[in-house]
Amino acid sequence: MQSDNPTAAILVIGDEILSGRTREGNAHHLAQVLSATGFDLREIRVVSDDHDRIVAAIRALDGSLGGDYDLLFTSGGIGPTHDDITADAVADAHGTTVEIHPEARALLEARCARMGVPLTENRLRMARIPVGATLIDNAVSAAPGFSIGRTHVMAGVPEVFRAMVDWLLPRLGAGRPVQSLSVEVRRGESDVAEDLKAVAGEYADLSLGSYPFHDQSGWGTNLVVRGLDEARVAEAMDALKARLKL
Amino acid sequence: MQSDNPTAAILVIGDEILSGRTREGNAHHLAQVLSATGFDLREIRVVSDDHDRIVAAIRALDGSLGGDYDLLFTSGGIGPTHDDITADAVADAHGTTVEIHPEARALLEARCARMGVPLTENRLRMARIPVGATLIDNAVSAAPGFSIGRTHVMAGVPEVFRAMVDWLLPRLGAGRPVQSLSVEVRRGESDVAEDLKAVAGEYADLSLGSYPFHDQSGWGTNLVVRGLDEARVAEAMDALKARLKL
Repeated sequence: MQSDNPTAAILVIGDEILSGRTREGNAHHLAQVLSATGFDLREIRVVSDDHDRIVAAIRALDGSLGGDYDLLFTSGGIGPTHDDITADAVADAHGTTVEIHPEARALLEARCARMGVPLTENRLRMARIPVGATLIDNAVSAAPGFSIGRTHVMAGVPEVFRAMVDWLLPRLGAGRPVQSLSVEVRRGESDVAEDLKAVAGEYADLSLGSYPFHDQSGWGTNLVVRGLDEARVAEAMDALKARLKL
Repeated sequence: MQSDNPTAAILVIGDEILSGRTREGNAHHLAQVLSATGFDLREIRVVSDDHDRIVAAIRALDGSLGGDYDLLFTSGGIGPTHDDITADAVADAHGTTVEIHPEARALLEARCARMGVPLTENRLRMARIPVGATLIDNAVSAAPGFSIGRTHVMAGVPEVFRAMVDWLLPRLGAGRPVQSLSVEVRRGESDVAEDLKAVAGEYADLSLGSYPFHDQSGWGTNLVVRGLDEARVAEAMDALKARLKL
């Protein structure tokens, strides 16, 4: 698909995904939001809670560090425990250090005061922010995310991740939303391959995909046309339906 | 966690994941199987249907090509359509070419004969296998996966992917299954951080993780102990419960 939308990657940090304990959902949510708001998600990576792995992935993905993409979003590892090492790794990747951020500290103090609990050393860990970063608002539980270079660091807890995405995305320079049309056919992928290829050749500026599935009734295929121009997407879908006699 | 289990990575190939259209499930399934059978999954990547991206990812992840892990499993892009480019990319990464594999062709011919449909050029695409690869059985729909170097290439359709995993995993040299115990506490992560850290320090050979969640009743945390020695995992969990007065 031809697009000059900003490119993006997602880095998920968490042993619980790799162990199979938790099914990842934050990247799926953000993928939908990015498509709808005009960003071109090109890669997702999941790495373990390992300092060197996180640093290497950030450097490979953040365009401001010579990495491949305009924007990098991360999920996970910014909580209060010993295995929350994302802030340190992000700081390292960006050539800076971590300090208690006064504004983040104030946010945590206010929340602890409201809850009537002390701001312990562990809770204060959540105010440790790379020097030079700006904060990402957390409407759920106060402890902020942060942005540095083109890396945007968010929490792993789904409710908090989503709140941070809602706050952050309108503040980034989006491109044009992706337009998408799909049709389901009760045929195997092999039976539609030739028509799909023909239409894809005529509409090289669009992305035409086929996604086979198998259910109680046997095989079917979802055909999807994606692009930035709504009229052009509709035209390609009409051409595809005409060829398939739908 | 100390482990000399074989290390593994998963590479998911598919625009439909990156566009947000489909929620990835194959990597989650395989992550569970790998933990249970004695492999140490270290990384998951999702890349688009782009030849160069797929080649680069395979080279970065397959240990036989200088990549980081003992084993690489891929999902997606081996169907009959123009956007199914995984076989070519895997061949390229492994310095070989793609040819019609006689055994794969025979499997497809037999299936087409059973179904009473012709073996079209599109269907025959699914017999295009890198030279030097061995086949992975597909109990669902005949079209095989394949193994080359340390790369194991499987289909994206979940039923087929699972059938291929079931066939393949017992044929690989597994290590020791991971033992895991978990306990849920109705406390925020900050309130358990100190005890968790103390026990993690005493049991440096194990992996202790905390996974906060938020539901109708407020905040809670799942505490998980993982390791290869069942008795040692149980001992660490007892120590953690004792500290937390559970």
